[in-house]
Amino acid sequence: MKTYTVAILGATGAVGREMMKVLAERAFPVHELRLLASPRSAGVLLPWQGGEIAVRAVEKGCFDGCDIVLGAASSTLARELAPEITAAGAVLVDNSSAFRHEAEVPLVVPEINGAAAKSHKGIIANPNCSTIITLMAVWPIARQFGLKSLTAATYQAVSGAGVGGIAQLEAEIRGEDCDSPAFPHAIARNVIPAIGSLTETGDTIEEAKMRHEGRKIMGIPGLRVACTCVRVPVMRCHSIAVSLETERPVTVEAARAAIAGGAGVALMDDFSAGIYPMPVNTENQDTVFAGRIRPDETREHGLTLWCCGDQLRKGAATNTVQIAELLV
Amino acid sequence: MKTYTVAILGATGAVGREMMKVLAERAFPVHELRLLASPRSAGVLLPWQGGEIAVRAVEKGCFDGCDIVLGAASSTLARELAPEITAAGAVLVDNSSAFRHEAEVPLVVPEINGAAAKSHKGIIANPNCSTIITLMAVWPIARQFGLKSLTAATYQAVSGAGVGGIAQLEAEIRGEDCDSPAFPHAIARNVIPAIGSLTETGDTIEEAKMRHEGRKIMGIPGLRVACTCVRVPVMRCHSIAVSLETERPVTVEAARAAIAGGAGVALMDDFSAGIYPMPVNTENQDTVFAGRIRPDETREHGLTLWCCGDQLRKGAATNTVQIAELLV
Repeated sequence: MKTYTVAILGATGAVGREMMKVLAERAFPVHELRLLASPRSAGVLLPWQGGEIAVRAVEKGCFDGCDIVLGAASSTLARELAPEITAAGAVLVDNSSAFRHEAEVPLVVPEINGAAAKSHKGIIANPNCSTIITLMAVWPIARQFGLKSLTAATYQAVSGAGVGGIAQLEAEIRGEDCDSPAFPHAIARNVIPAIGSLTETGDTIEEAKMRHEGRKIMGIPGLRVACTCVRVPVMRCHSIAVSLETERPVTVEAARAAIAGGAGVALMDDFSAGIYPMPVNTENQDTVFAGRIRPDETREHGLTLWCCGDQLRKGAATNTVQIAELLV
Repeated sequence: MKTYTVAILGATGAVGREMMKVLAERAFPVHELRLLASPRSAGVLLPWQGGEIAVRAVEKGCFDGCDIVLGAASSTLARELAPEITAAGAVLVDNSSAFRHEAEVPLVVPEINGAAAKSHKGIIANPNCSTIITLMAVWPIARQFGLKSLTAATYQAVSGAGVGGIAQLEAEIRGEDCDSPAFPHAIARNVIPAIGSLTETGDTIEEAKMRHEGRKIMGIPGLRVACTCVRVPVMRCHSIAVSLETERPVTVEAARAAIAGGAGVALMDDFSAGIYPMPVNTENQDTVFAGRIRPDETREHGLTLWCCGDQLRKGAATNTVQIAELLV
C-alpha cells in the first residue's frame, strides 16, 4: 500500500491538533507526518502513534518531499506559502478562505461534490465550518428536490475562533478577564451577532461565505441566501436554524427520509424523548445531525430544520482529511 | 391624583420581582401594593418604597379591594383565579398564556395596539416575551410597509424559565449539578432547540406563540411565520435573528429610519465600532434594540435584522405595567 508524506501547516492550533487525531483515527496511509507551525512553537512535542513528533518551524525547504499539505493556518500564510508547496510537488488541501473563490480551485465537501477534487491544480480548498455543517444537512434535500433559497441563523462555538476563543470563554467562566480576547466583547453569558468584518452588502464575511461557498459547492449559482452568524458561549459544535425553499414540492416525511439516507448526516429527531441535535450530544463526532424538521409556511415549498455538528471535526479537520483521502 | 390598589400574583418569581421594580421606577400611582404568592413564600419580606411588604399567600378574599392584579403566575393558576379576581372588581393584566387567544381578551403591546386594551372585559393578556421583543423591532417596518411573512430564530435567556433557569445555569457554570433543573438538558456550554412542548405542526408551543400572538397583536391574520426557539446560556435578554417580507418595497435606509422613529425601540447599528444589540448591552433596560439591518435576497421585499431586549423588562414586567397604565 502506498504511503504518503503529509504535513500539517499550523499543527499546534485547534484545527491542526484535530487533524492529527483524524489522520490517526481514519488510518490515513501516512509515511511521514511533518508538523509545521510558527517558530515559537518549534520543538513542541505532540503525540503520534505511540511516539512523539517535534513541531518544526515553517522555513525554506520544509515542504520538500511532501505529498500532501493540510493547511490549518491563516489565509495570509496560506497565500504566502502556496507557491512553495505546489512547487515542491505537494497538493495543498487548505482550510483557510484564501483560495475558496478561485475558479480553478475546487471547494469540496466529499459527500456533496467529491468529484470536483479530481480537477485540482495543486490546491483544493476546504469550506467554511458553518457552511459545511449547514450544507451537510441541507444537501440530501437539495439533491432530491432542488434548492431555491436558504435562510440560516447560526449558533457558533468559540473554538471556531481557535484556541484563543476557548481561552476567552474559559477565563470568563472562571470570572477572570482574558488577557488577549479573541472576540470584540465578552462571550460568557452573551451572544455576539458579529463574526468577521463587514462586506458591502451589510453581511459579514462569515455570512457571505454561506452564500458564495454554498453556491459553488452545491453547484447552484442562483441560490439565494440570507444568513446571520452569531457567536454563542459554547466550546465546540456549531448549530444552525435553517429555513429553505426547494424547487419542487417536499413533505416533512420526504425530507426526513432524505436526511436519514444521506451520507455523513443523521436524523436526530425524537422531540418527545428530548432527542434533537445540541452541542452536548454532537461534539467529538464526524456526523452532522439534523432534526426539528417542519413545514415553513412563509415559502411555497418551505421547510425549517435545525442542525448541529462539530466544527473542528466535520467542519474542518475531518473534511480536510476526507479530501486528502480522495487524492490517495 | 387617583391611586390604585395593585396586587402582584406570583410576586416572588423572576417576573414578579421585576414588576415591583418597574412599578416603582415608573411611579405607578399605587395606593396599596399587595404581594401574593404560594403559601411557602408567605411572610417573605420584599422591599418597597423604603419599607418592606410581607408576601401573602393566595387565599379566599385576597383580591378584595384590588383595582388591578398583575399576573406573574402559571397559566393554570391564572385560569383558576381569574373568576375570583374579576368578581372582586379588579382587572387582571396577565403575563401567562392562559387567555391570550380568547377573542374577548385583548393581547396588548402598548406601542403597537394600545387601543385594544380599552375593550377589555376584566382581563388583558400580556404577550409572550420573545414575541414582544421581535414585534417591537418589526412593527415600525410592518406599520409603514406592510408585513407578509416573518422568519425568526431566537436566542433566549435562561431567566425566561424563571429563577429555576437562572439557578441551573449558575450551578452548571460553577461545575455543580443542579438539584431541580429547569431545562431538559445541560444549558451551560450548550444550546437547546426546544422550549415548551410540541404542537401538531411540529412547532413547539413557544414557536407557535410567535405566529398566533404576532397575528393578533399586529392585526395581520394572514401573517406567515416560521420560528425556531432556542435556549442559550445567557442570564437575561432574548435575542432574535429575524428575516421578514414586507408587502411593499422597502430599503435598508427606510427600515433604519422606521426603527429609529419607533416608540420603545432604538437602532443600535454601528458595526465597525463594534456596536450592535447583545445581551450584555441591552439588559436592565426597557428599550428593545435592533441592528444588522440588511436586504434579504431570498424574498421579493426582504429584510434581515437582529434584535435584542430584556425579556424580564419589556418582554414581561414593563409591558404588563404599561398595560396597567392604560387603565388609569
